[in-house]
Amino acid sequence: MNILVTLNSAYLRPVLVMLKSMFMNSQGEMFSIYLMHSSLKQQEIDEINDFVTKHGHILHVITVDDECFKEAPVVMHYSREMYYRLLAYKFLPKEVGKILYLDPDILVINNLHRLYDTDISDYLFAASYHRRMLSKEFNKVRLNAYDMQEYYNSGVLLMNVDRQRSEMDERKIFDFIARYKNRLVLPDQDVLNSLYSDSIRELNEVQFNLDTRFYRYNKLISNGGIDMDYIFHNTCILHFCGKRKPWHKNYMGVFHSLYKYYEKQANDFVASFTRQAPVFANA
Amino acid sequence: MNILVTLNSAYLRPVLVMLKSMFMNSQGEMFSIYLMHSSLKQQEIDEINDFVTKHGHILHVITVDDECFKEAPVVMHYSREMYYRLLAYKFLPKEVGKILYLDPDILVINNLHRLYDTDISDYLFAASYHRRMLSKEFNKVRLNAYDMQEYYNSGVLLMNVDRQRSEMDERKIFDFIARYKNRLVLPDQDVLNSLYSDSIRELNEVQFNLDTRFYRYNKLISNGGIDMDYIFHNTCILHFCGKRKPWHKNYMGVFHSLYKYYEKQANDFVASFTRQAPVFANA
Repeated sequence: MNILVTLNSAYLRPVLVMLKSMFMNSQGEMFSIYLMHSSLKQQEIDEINDFVTKHGHILHVITVDDECFKEAPVVMHYSREMYYRLLAYKFLPKEVGKILYLDPDILVINNLHRLYDTDISDYLFAASYHRRMLSKEFNKVRLNAYDMQEYYNSGVLLMNVDRQRSEMDERKIFDFIARYKNRLVLPDQDVLNSLYSDSIRELNEVQFNLDTRFYRYNKLISNGGIDMDYIFHNTCILHFCGKRKPWHKNYMGVFHSLYKYYEKQANDFVASFTRQAPVFANA
Repeated sequence: MNILVTLNSAYLRPVLVMLKSMFMNSQGEMFSIYLMHSSLKQQEIDEINDFVTKHGHILHVITVDDECFKEAPVVMHYSREMYYRLLAYKFLPKEVGKILYLDPDILVINNLHRLYDTDISDYLFAASYHRRMLSKEFNKVRLNAYDMQEYYNSGVLLMNVDRQRSEMDERKIFDFIARYKNRLVLPDQDVLNSLYSDSIRELNEVQFNLDTRFYRYNKLISNGGIDMDYIFHNTCILHFCGKRKPWHKNYMGVFHSLYKYYEKQANDFVASFTRQAPVFANA
């Protein structure tokens, strides 16, 4: 299974936690992890490589020249790396025909096979949309995109890289960014939704991209059906969307204790091979 | 390490979850589990036995004749089995000199060695007291026990069985229950505190018997020191005290998602050897 992650130093620890949760919940699975970055230090890359290989998986490092992205605006707490997923097809080796991009603020709590095996041969992407987040109509007007189908979340993105290579064009993406620079709120998602929404296969959001902020909302509108039991048996991916992250000191969310459990598993694993005390988020 | 559990059918699933959490967080440890019961069906005992032995540990079943406890009142949601811990010394085989009693509404989240290795050679028990739960002074008056030191929680009880055999007397316990029958609120704890409080070594409650209802309270009074990070690295036992249990349908507590994680591990393990769909708490 091919997995794409993109990060800078600030997300090193969350990425290890995300990977740990994925490894723990996909026994017997073989992962090829593609890491796209432009600013990680060698020591940080070594730590990720040790972490991945000592779990029996493979890491491929793709160092990106940031010149390619100098026109892309950095907005709020989003970093330039968020664009990498849209142009990954230009950097990935030819043998990669399909890959699953995952944000670092994610826990994988069930085997990803059901997600990875989704047939996207007729699409560029598969993604979930979070209906409550931003009104589709509002975004249509904001982005002048009257043929936009839905507003998809770009944090979990299954990619048909073969088709992207022949159909996608980075100039179109850069032109779009240049034109809407001042209206972009979630830049990568805006590009995804404005330019490619009709080439995205929808993924069930509760199963494959559950926004953890809306646990109680989901439970309520489902008359209690989407509760903890349902999630632990049906959800593959918990996505800690928004500014408040579970590794922050004063985070309070329904999945906080679960996140800290996986964080400890990741930290303990790092400590076991570095023979030094693990670096905790809040230390 | 000797572990004592006492249960009826209603607590079968929680006990498996508790044991699973203990096995997962005590790698390399060998457990001898002593199960005291009076009403479990053979099929239920077989399930516990399979669960324990397939994890590489040993189960000893002690079937109790309830005649011994017919004078003991059953109060509220507490079952007769709660007295077993006080008289376990009469039922345990001679080779057991020390044992750790654990309630079923518990998660073990770190290795129990620090707890088990506590020196109690000069005591009958080691236990934690939950300062906020019931006022010591109130209990002193209620139980007429003016020499009571503290009000200890009986859900995690390290026992010096050798010393108990020579110093404890069940007639004293039955006399006490007969005398205070109408004033008992948490009967086993009342006995423990009234008769034995000066023979109990104190265990740190945050480390060894953390009442999950007081997570935010503990965090507040410690100026944020006792937060999730602290707990995951220092607490051995989370205790889901009170009537609301994390396996109930509408439970909402800080450690709900963590509990459900361990519950799923236990259920998946049962399913792996019974080759049938696991029985979920809410199914």
